[in-house]
Amino acid sequence: MAGSTGHDGMQDTMREDDVRQEGIGQGVLELVDRWWRAANYLSVGQIYLRSNPLLREPLQAEDTKSRLLGHWGTTPGLNFIYAHLNRVIRRDNLEMLFVAGPGHGGPAVVANAWLEGTYSEIYAHVGNDEAGIAELFRQFSYPGGIPSHAAPESPGSISEGGELGYSLAHAYGSVFDNPQLVTAVVIGDGEAETGPLAASWHSHNFLDPAADGAVLPILHLNGYKIANPTILARMPEDQLEQLLRGYGHQPYFVTVQDPDNTEQAHRDFAAVLDRCLGEIKAIQDSHRQDPEAEKVGEGGHRWPMIVLRSPKGWTGPRTVDGLQVEGTWRAHQVPLSEVRTNGEHLKQLEEWLKSYRADELFDAEGRLRPDVARGAPAGDFRMSATPHANGGLLRRALKLPAYRDHAVEVPNPGTDRVSPMITLGSWMRDVIAENMDNFRLFGPDETASNRLQNVYEVTDKVWQYRIDDVDEHLARSGRVMEVLSEHLCQGWLEGYLLTGRHGVFNCYEAFVHIVDSMFNQHAKWLKVHRKLQWRQPVPSLNYLLSSHVWQQDHNGFSHQDPGFIDHAVNKKAEVIRVYLPPDANTLLSVMEHCLASTDYVNIVVSGKQPSPTWLGPADAANHCRRGLGIWTFAGSEVPGEEPDVVLACAGDVPTVETVAAAELLREGAPGLKVRVVNVVDLMRLQDDSEHPHGLPAHDFDGIFTPDKPVIFAYHGYPALIHRLAYRRTNQQGLHVHGYKEEGTTTTPFDMAMLNGIDRFTLAIDAIDRVPGLAGTHALLRQDLQDRRNRAREHTRTHGEDPKEIRNWKLGG
Amino acid sequence: MAGSTGHDGMQDTMREDDVRQEGIGQGVLELVDRWWRAANYLSVGQIYLRSNPLLREPLQAEDTKSRLLGHWGTTPGLNFIYAHLNRVIRRDNLEMLFVAGPGHGGPAVVANAWLEGTYSEIYAHVGNDEAGIAELFRQFSYPGGIPSHAAPESPGSISEGGELGYSLAHAYGSVFDNPQLVTAVVIGDGEAETGPLAASWHSHNFLDPAADGAVLPILHLNGYKIANPTILARMPEDQLEQLLRGYGHQPYFVTVQDPDNTEQAHRDFAAVLDRCLGEIKAIQDSHRQDPEAEKVGEGGHRWPMIVLRSPKGWTGPRTVDGLQVEGTWRAHQVPLSEVRTNGEHLKQLEEWLKSYRADELFDAEGRLRPDVARGAPAGDFRMSATPHANGGLLRRALKLPAYRDHAVEVPNPGTDRVSPMITLGSWMRDVIAENMDNFRLFGPDETASNRLQNVYEVTDKVWQYRIDDVDEHLARSGRVMEVLSEHLCQGWLEGYLLTGRHGVFNCYEAFVHIVDSMFNQHAKWLKVHRKLQWRQPVPSLNYLLSSHVWQQDHNGFSHQDPGFIDHAVNKKAEVIRVYLPPDANTLLSVMEHCLASTDYVNIVVSGKQPSPTWLGPADAANHCRRGLGIWTFAGSEVPGEEPDVVLACAGDVPTVETVAAAELLREGAPGLKVRVVNVVDLMRLQDDSEHPHGLPAHDFDGIFTPDKPVIFAYHGYPALIHRLAYRRTNQQGLHVHGYKEEGTTTTPFDMAMLNGIDRFTLAIDAIDRVPGLAGTHALLRQDLQDRRNRAREHTRTHGEDPKEIRNWKLGG
Repeated sequence: MAGSTGHDGMQDTMREDDVRQEGIGQGVLELVDRWWRAANYLSVGQIYLRSNPLLREPLQAEDTKSRLLGHWGTTPGLNFIYAHLNRVIRRDNLEMLFVAGPGHGGPAVVANAWLEGTYSEIYAHVGNDEAGIAELFRQFSYPGGIPSHAAPESPGSISEGGELGYSLAHAYGSVFDNPQLVTAVVIGDGEAETGPLAASWHSHNFLDPAADGAVLPILHLNGYKIANPTILARMPEDQLEQLLRGYGHQPYFVTVQDPDNTEQAHRDFAAVLDRCLGEIKAIQDSHRQDPEAEKVGEGGHRWPMIVLRSPKGWTGPRTVDGLQVEGTWRAHQVPLSEVRTNGEHLKQLEEWLKSYRADELFDAEGRLRPDVARGAPAGDFRMSATPHANGGLLRRALKLPAYRDHAVEVPNPGTDRVSPMITLGSWMRDVIAENMDNFRLFGPDETASNRLQNVYEVTDKVWQYRIDDVDEHLARSGRVMEVLSEHLCQGWLEGYLLTGRHGVFNCYEAFVHIVDSMFNQHAKWLKVHRKLQWRQPVPSLNYLLSSHVWQQDHNGFSHQDPGFIDHAVNKKAEVIRVYLPPDANTLLSVMEHCLASTDYVNIVVSGKQPSPTWLGPADAANHCRRGLGIWTFAGSEVPGEEPDVVLACAGDVPTVETVAAAELLREGAPGLKVRVVNVVDLMRLQDDSEHPHGLPAHDFDGIFTPDKPVIFAYHGYPALIHRLAYRRTNQQGLHVHGYKEEGTTTTPFDMAMLNGIDRFTLAIDAIDRVPGLAGTHALLRQDLQDRRNRAREHTRTHGEDPKEIRNWKLGG
Repeated sequence: MAGSTGHDGMQDTMREDDVRQEGIGQGVLELVDRWWRAANYLSVGQIYLRSNPLLREPLQAEDTKSRLLGHWGTTPGLNFIYAHLNRVIRRDNLEMLFVAGPGHGGPAVVANAWLEGTYSEIYAHVGNDEAGIAELFRQFSYPGGIPSHAAPESPGSISEGGELGYSLAHAYGSVFDNPQLVTAVVIGDGEAETGPLAASWHSHNFLDPAADGAVLPILHLNGYKIANPTILARMPEDQLEQLLRGYGHQPYFVTVQDPDNTEQAHRDFAAVLDRCLGEIKAIQDSHRQDPEAEKVGEGGHRWPMIVLRSPKGWTGPRTVDGLQVEGTWRAHQVPLSEVRTNGEHLKQLEEWLKSYRADELFDAEGRLRPDVARGAPAGDFRMSATPHANGGLLRRALKLPAYRDHAVEVPNPGTDRVSPMITLGSWMRDVIAENMDNFRLFGPDETASNRLQNVYEVTDKVWQYRIDDVDEHLARSGRVMEVLSEHLCQGWLEGYLLTGRHGVFNCYEAFVHIVDSMFNQHAKWLKVHRKLQWRQPVPSLNYLLSSHVWQQDHNGFSHQDPGFIDHAVNKKAEVIRVYLPPDANTLLSVMEHCLASTDYVNIVVSGKQPSPTWLGPADAANHCRRGLGIWTFAGSEVPGEEPDVVLACAGDVPTVETVAAAELLREGAPGLKVRVVNVVDLMRLQDDSEHPHGLPAHDFDGIFTPDKPVIFAYHGYPALIHRLAYRRTNQQGLHVHGYKEEGTTTTPFDMAMLNGIDRFTLAIDAIDRVPGLAGTHALLRQDLQDRRNRAREHTRTHGEDPKEIRNWKLGG
């Protein structure tokens, strides 16, 4: 017998009362059950069948797939929940989004999309008839077909079901600024063991019940992972209830104790679902009617959630070859693995399929019978068809205020010092002010540390727990999302973007590696998404990385890692963009470009400390448009002649050192023709056959010369520059200086020296690479070396960079 | 007034009773307080002072550092806890390890190590006198000095305090198989918001109270992060208690309500600490005396923990410039930021320092007074001196059974098919059997999926919650640690390794990116650790990556990512090793090598599906020793002559395709001299100036030729091979095929074709690259192209690879 209890001693008797009160008639639950059976049938068929899809003939071994791929275990639970959600969507005209957290939920989301008609609308070759069902079955987990997870190809999905752990964060991201939306998110109990999921439970502290929608978490305890029980399913139930209440939720338990008594399970789940939706509405009403309503943590609301305890592989074979399967880890993948060769397995499969009574569900042509089909909500209310899961449909372009009002004047390159991030923060403030329901700024407690504090002039950080007098810029609603979890920042933002809104994730450069794998999944999602005609472009994922490797005076070695760029460029070139603006105005220009773009991952790296400004507003815009360019003001070229040496740079600190090195050479080796090249858009370095931003070979050779030494000072690991430029004519002449994993708590210039990107080292390298120069300029070389040694000595003795370096300005 | 309550209604009155019962006399607590004051004094001094360390003269602006770096906020709380732990260590002769989770706890761990004498023993230039204190102060967060976090340089530390989130997992790793050890881990409330930390609370389900030690978590709620309140500190206390009880703990709260009443705080904390240690001992005793003692989740034990709620920046300036500082986020870094220029700040600093009454703590020479010094435990009981924090001291080499007993015979290369991982599992079984207290195998629910199931013949997976009849290989103790969290696997293993034991982390290749950032921190730790004479070598961190990119028939695109290798090679060459054994015997040889090594990160990638065996046991050992070699059996070279083309490969699937391509060429283009080179140790490709494993240039040119085309089939992203070989003579002749981020749910050979590493593509590339061959062998080229097309067509139609490919064997 199934039981349903809440924390406050809600008794079993509640169940039937509620069912009566809410008017869940027998007929309604029968419709739910038919839908569930149809979805289960289509799920099993996807895993097993390649012909005879409706079992109109006795099942033969040849009707089954030669390779059985896919996973059954989680599927019937997902189908069960989906069927129940449809009931309330229909009844209440709910805008609801479905997030399938458990791994390998592909058969379920696809089956339900087909039942709702969405699948055939999108994929015409998978029609609403027997031939369509046959194709639905054939394509699943089949070469050239569709994946076994919820994926971009799955209508209604915004969350890849492969890696696990991100469903709850995605769900929250989807409802921010969507007050009418309820996102039902099924969380697998395997997934629930991951760190990101464990952290996500606290997300409600960042959700404003008045201006945001609601998340209904459904923790699905089917008890097992691939080969093990799960922690949450095995801990005592009173402990689990404490845990969920500790997370701030009000859990309601639905436990399927008798797998055969599906009627009871339906009644229990329906009652609990109604109760949860009622509580959600009550919370929303109170906050929307009274802005001063009590908040969570002040004796106020607790968001409801459901714990569904049902057998893994529910309704599948109970035992196979004498071993229990239903309700165990053995139901994880394919419960009957030898249907092609084992007659008993084949017979069991046939019985299993027949147990869903397909004849009651599909007519002679294989169309869904009307008394199943009416289980689907109408039009866009279908969870498989909701525009929220195809966010490009809802996307409104950001209103981007002119950034030139925030740009700094640059009377002379290199003389003024400005923090690029503070400058950007002032523009971001205006971006936020003009897009108060369409843009958010995410960061792990670092927005002010990264110097974007100007945004707090127009908005606040969201926080629902107690707010004390000493707190600054905390409020019940706001545009800034701060939590000390890069996983949550990324997960929320992904959910926000894929439902059509815009955002920026600002992060310490080193620690963005925490979300490497989430980035992978999002970049893979975008790659597939871009090829699907029916998916509309979504806003780009914008990373704004600051507090970077060269400015870690406080933090040292653990905070020094510029490798996220390397990680990112492994992903498809059409998706990845990397920008290293050298100063404040170029940062403004780059960010404007990124915020207006769609379907990319943009990575922007910028320092936060005051640093020289190089280009005025117009020059900055032009430079960024080209992506790279020769800085004649910094070099000593003779017009019309090839330079002797090229000093190239990418990144703000390398740019300072490169310009300084050019100055040292101009002073010490007059007559030497030095070209300075600055690279903003890193992908310009790649061949145009490899990246859409790649510079054509002829243009590249014109800038970097075919054969002159190129001393390249790069922000990150040097190998990346070689990698990007490896098809270039002059790649043998390319000598890259960058971060060599030498670091500690020290001054910025000492860091540059430790890794050999300092002005002295660059100038010496130029002397050594230009034929003959080391001989004619031995004294200069020695002088540079001495000055370098003195700078190191000074830093060690005084704890700070030498004054002439700290206050360095470009001469003239 | 401070309050101390436990879940069971333990009242304030308990406190004093306990203090009396346990005999915590006033004198004992005064000693604790003196220690705390001394540690606080030394912490403030590290942040501020460069001279006049003991304030023997009135404080002058010039006595302070010109740049104020470091963080005060968390430090007094850490010092408080440390002082109290020392009391019980002394009393009970406890073996205790201290893990400082909060960020920027450096001043505290360093101060305590100095007080304990350890610091001066290790770093002779920082003596136990006034000059030593001056140096202690000077070096902190100073160029060439020490970092502001707990770090390898910090005596007593196994956990970097930079990135946050891993302290609790590290703590658990340290106590596995250390039954006598209690690890006290301070968890910052900022850190507690991270996903990995949130997941770590469940770790006790994997700890055997009989055979493992204990972890005492101390959740330090000082209320604020950099700029925000923390979630755990702001949620209602009853909710927090539910949360911690939901995690399975028994929390005891110590709340400092009056920061000035430190005596009360000492009494409260001492009483709770005694109670926790008593409960730990009771749990251990019951399990060690009775193996059938009730377990957690069966009405059995709950491990105790402490929640210390104390003001951020406790004992620091209460207000600065009229704003509250103590007890707020403003105490996070340097509370008084203008001591050099603001007389009021300087005066406040002097008062602050004097509040610790240094004259009572240090004698005229600056030595610690005996009635402070006796607060330190003796010898190795000092937490700063415990050998557990310098695990190399305790490291016992693994007993490695001869792997040749498990090696497979290879009568002919390529004819038999064996799963390398199953073969390895059989050897790992013996490794485990011979090292039952010194080795563990970690994995996220994937040990069987990765085909290492043979280990279950001798051991089990650890699990403390209920074990059901249907479960297999679950037990209260065992060598296999499975939890669906890569973060936990990595964190536990790091703690286990750094305390001197051995282990392997087996993981799906794609999802090891989840721990990219943890890998970064560990590799950085090792880099620094290796330079510290006093730190002894620790066992290597071994990654065994399977279920790799080429064998994802079930899982598809989300599971396809070979980029961890790229990520890893950015770290210091002396630390990183990467192996791609092509078959079962080479995998055995490589793993034996890795398990015997120290101070490396070894990355081993191997498929789990049956695949051709190439080398017999002796040949495999030789091949692995060389790291790469020419496979004459696969090529068609003429001895003494240069080949026309080199087919090189790294990785098991690329090796199969390369050998097959060579066979296609031998059949189709007799007379063509094809050399086949297999690379096991990827670092051999790098120049020997860049990596200790790098092959000398002359040897490299001998194998790869200086100028012949090299068609290189690589397991991962092609750019890495170019990157590693970019200094090589023949790098222009290098044509790399690898994963191009083209994937989906499809067959292995279809994956190879999608990404152009299949035999046909490789053979065609060879034809195209050898001058003249495309002209003379146009028909062969066309035939290969046709066969490739037919293979794709067959896969699309039949859902499987063509039989001649599935069953492919090397001819002759």
